[in-house]
Amino acid sequence: MAAVIAHLGPRGTFSEQAALAYQTWLQENQGQDSSLMAYPSILQAIQAVDQEAATLAIVPVENSIEGSVAVTLDTLWQLASLQIQQALVLPIRHNLITHAHRTEQIEAIYSHPQALGQCQQWITRHCPQAILVPTRSTAESLRHLEDNATTAAIASTWAADLYQLPVLARTINDQPDNCTKFWILGKSPSTQGNHTSLAFSLPINAPGALLKPLEIFAQADINLSRIESRPTKRSLGEYLFFLDLEASLTAVHTQQTLQAIEDCTEQLKLFGSYDTIPIARPAVE
Amino acid sequence: MAAVIAHLGPRGTFSEQAALAYQTWLQENQGQDSSLMAYPSILQAIQAVDQEAATLAIVPVENSIEGSVAVTLDTLWQLASLQIQQALVLPIRHNLITHAHRTEQIEAIYSHPQALGQCQQWITRHCPQAILVPTRSTAESLRHLEDNATTAAIASTWAADLYQLPVLARTINDQPDNCTKFWILGKSPSTQGNHTSLAFSLPINAPGALLKPLEIFAQADINLSRIESRPTKRSLGEYLFFLDLEASLTAVHTQQTLQAIEDCTEQLKLFGSYDTIPIARPAVE
Repeated sequence: MAAVIAHLGPRGTFSEQAALAYQTWLQENQGQDSSLMAYPSILQAIQAVDQEAATLAIVPVENSIEGSVAVTLDTLWQLASLQIQQALVLPIRHNLITHAHRTEQIEAIYSHPQALGQCQQWITRHCPQAILVPTRSTAESLRHLEDNATTAAIASTWAADLYQLPVLARTINDQPDNCTKFWILGKSPSTQGNHTSLAFSLPINAPGALLKPLEIFAQADINLSRIESRPTKRSLGEYLFFLDLEASLTAVHTQQTLQAIEDCTEQLKLFGSYDTIPIARPAVE
Repeated sequence: MAAVIAHLGPRGTFSEQAALAYQTWLQENQGQDSSLMAYPSILQAIQAVDQEAATLAIVPVENSIEGSVAVTLDTLWQLASLQIQQALVLPIRHNLITHAHRTEQIEAIYSHPQALGQCQQWITRHCPQAILVPTRSTAESLRHLEDNATTAAIASTWAADLYQLPVLARTINDQPDNCTKFWILGKSPSTQGNHTSLAFSLPINAPGALLKPLEIFAQADINLSRIESRPTKRSLGEYLFFLDLEASLTAVHTQQTLQAIEDCTEQLKLFGSYDTIPIARPAVE
């Protein structure tokens, strides 16, 4: 049966690019057919899997410039049913898409707030006069262009091609190494793979209590590749911690260490062990 | 000479409410006159102080639901000149502002993405049909109402009064304890106060290296009230860590501990010691 892969829409988002790359990987490596389904928000894409309207969701979790995608972490914590099946890293290239012939003509630039943030220095240098207008996705920003030569959007060249719109300036992101990590979420148990992700709350409401779990991982010689705090949403100063470990849940050593972690945390949730799948190049540039 | 306080505008934002509360505190406690100046972004408000167009900037740093305000942390790291003068915690109450008489009439809800996020459950229950449209501030969302009874905005009752717009539903935030912490940034050296904020990068690009500084604080019996990671923006997996300590830079013990921290971090920046000023109630509800 073909899998249904949920992602943030509309057509032309970086999430759709990641979904296309994953679809190719699924076909080539697991002989699995799949179709893509766009949702208007990351939350709705994840909920679609929880409610079994989709098999998998591919969602951004971290960008190298802007940091964590809060809604992805918060939703994973709230929905107990989901596990991380794989990870995938997509290079991000932003482009100025507009009917204008010169940057001086541009009065307003539309894009997702993260994209606007990632091109801030370029915009200040080339379009200091432009006001910046946030949209729900980079792809959605293209809807604001119409035939107006005083507006511009920031999105991928692939999105520009898709909507047949002209690119005035290519690769305008301030950092050339801009990339986004995506997680593929599903309901299958995940125990295979070299990375393990988890989150916990602490019995004492102070990050000082974080020392104990970090000591346990250090003593077990398990390396942490990431640590991120999120508010518990109960009151200011109470946090959840999201950790990525370089360890597999299949190893007895990992299981023993997590037993010790369970003893010094309030609530511990395991999101599974998984690998980062290689994509030779973005499905489309 | 009157101080100029920069904040995120336009008129009616929660940042302006915080600025008004701080203005009252400055007058009553330090006999200091001040005027407010609105900027179109948090970045520009902070830069105004760096460039001496304003004396102080009051900027949001953390919300109890949505977590850290990334631009505030990132800008403080980049601009070496600024110190935290004080902190202030403002209760946040969101309200549905619209010309509609019933929630069923509403086709679109405008607000800042954080405000939309903080009212998500209420919106799903009362306006499931509405599309959500992000704006740059809660106050800006009010501009989208005009005379149209099919649109709504989410902002404070104070902003509704300011623009003489009707409130259809009060206190629609999903969590009653919603509050935002603001920092007041300026160029004066900050050494007095019971909280100290700092940030550092690590010589080894792995959060495992975070264990050493945390151990030093624990051995020195200095409590951490917050820890937050941000990307270095160099490459995925490299982080800066922002810490709030319950300690004062005037104490010799703190200075000695920070000396040991300096030895095990790559780059260490101190943002000063400061107190949280009490506000009996928000300047306006």
